[in-house]
Amino acid sequence: MTELTFGQYDLVSNFFSLTIASMGAATAFLWINRSQVADQYKTAITVSGLVTFIALYHYFKISMSWSSGFDAVEGTMVANGSFNQAYRYVDWLLTVPLLLIELILVMKLSASETMSKSVKLGGLAALMIILGYPGEISDVNSTRWLWWSLSMIPFLIIVFELFVGLKKSQEAQPQEAKKLIGFARFLVIASWSFYPIVFILPMLGIEGGSAATLVEIGYSISDIVAKAVFGVLIFMIAVKKTEADKRLAA
Amino acid sequence: MTELTFGQYDLVSNFFSLTIASMGAATAFLWINRSQVADQYKTAITVSGLVTFIALYHYFKISMSWSSGFDAVEGTMVANGSFNQAYRYVDWLLTVPLLLIELILVMKLSASETMSKSVKLGGLAALMIILGYPGEISDVNSTRWLWWSLSMIPFLIIVFELFVGLKKSQEAQPQEAKKLIGFARFLVIASWSFYPIVFILPMLGIEGGSAATLVEIGYSISDIVAKAVFGVLIFMIAVKKTEADKRLAA
Repeated sequence: MTELTFGQYDLVSNFFSLTIASMGAATAFLWINRSQVADQYKTAITVSGLVTFIALYHYFKISMSWSSGFDAVEGTMVANGSFNQAYRYVDWLLTVPLLLIELILVMKLSASETMSKSVKLGGLAALMIILGYPGEISDVNSTRWLWWSLSMIPFLIIVFELFVGLKKSQEAQPQEAKKLIGFARFLVIASWSFYPIVFILPMLGIEGGSAATLVEIGYSISDIVAKAVFGVLIFMIAVKKTEADKRLAA
Repeated sequence: MTELTFGQYDLVSNFFSLTIASMGAATAFLWINRSQVADQYKTAITVSGLVTFIALYHYFKISMSWSSGFDAVEGTMVANGSFNQAYRYVDWLLTVPLLLIELILVMKLSASETMSKSVKLGGLAALMIILGYPGEISDVNSTRWLWWSLSMIPFLIIVFELFVGLKKSQEAQPQEAKKLIGFARFLVIASWSFYPIVFILPMLGIEGGSAATLVEIGYSISDIVAKAVFGVLIFMIAVKKTEADKRLAA
């Protein structure tokens, strides 16, 4: 049974609440500001808002599951086994492919390239999430390492594809947006790298309440960066590209 | 009494949650992006969003009914008889005719053809749902087969009508949209075929908890494909047709 101190338990609850507030705010920001960008970037902004909207829903579910998943027993919070980690995975299954699609959409590649990259990267992302889940719900370290390793294969292919595959497309972007797109590529890779690290924390001898606390906080921060911060960055890119299009048309 | 393992019970709960998130995301996507299509396709997009919006509501009800419909008894989840399958049928009664209407609307046939096809296909779809319901709530296999067979009559007429009747209209569509409309016709037929198959699973000797689990997951996946994925496809068709109309007007 996982035992948390009241301080650890509340810290996680507060981080869930912070994440809910961030996701709700990002969704409103993106959908309201969508009218600021040219028509061809509007779908990218809609999708960016969808990602934070879906995460908002799931953090509500996670937060409620966290509340009912622990009982106060003699001065500590004891897990009763009902806390449902699956909500995270259901969330990622929907949002991670969409995250890649919003990046692809804002680059405004050709229709066929947009479609082929979306299917390829989106499919790999879904595979990565599905392979991670059996490890996440296991308490056995060897099982966790097995699924973590399998999940790392699509992960590394995606990272490689973003670094090398999208690099070429980046060159063709207008000067104003080039830097921001480079930063977006970097942010995806940096924020995504957190997830496999958070996953292995319980396998590194960090145990019980501390591990559970670190895992929940780690995933929450990663989700805020990878979804809300990233979404705002996509919006900024779309604004810069709208300006560049106007300049070229003039 | 149907008995489920905790694993089966949670799996179904997670699928309901996935469906809620998908329907909510699809609704937001369709209604926000509605401004991207030409005026004559806006109603098709509104209706597509209505379908996922109605399904969002019903999956909330189904999910709550699932929570209160089972009790934990000695390590298994035992049905207390209150789980209400009728929510699905009420949902389908509203959404299935609307699904056919969104497909008819996006094809932009003549006004009289739009009306006659909507009434005919919508009416047949409603009849199909009504005839399926007495079988769904029965535990007697012969009763289930009887209503399943009756329900298959309007089902097959609709499928025939879509394959043959809409085929001719498809020929008249602009080049850009022809492929997507063909895919939409195929997706309706493929996703709809799941429902009668899911219906007969309990009659094929798959019993108890496994049957209940498979039926709920099967219907959830079918609904995501037939409503959310299909709705996005209708949006993509409307975008292509908007582009084609602009090209022809230029």
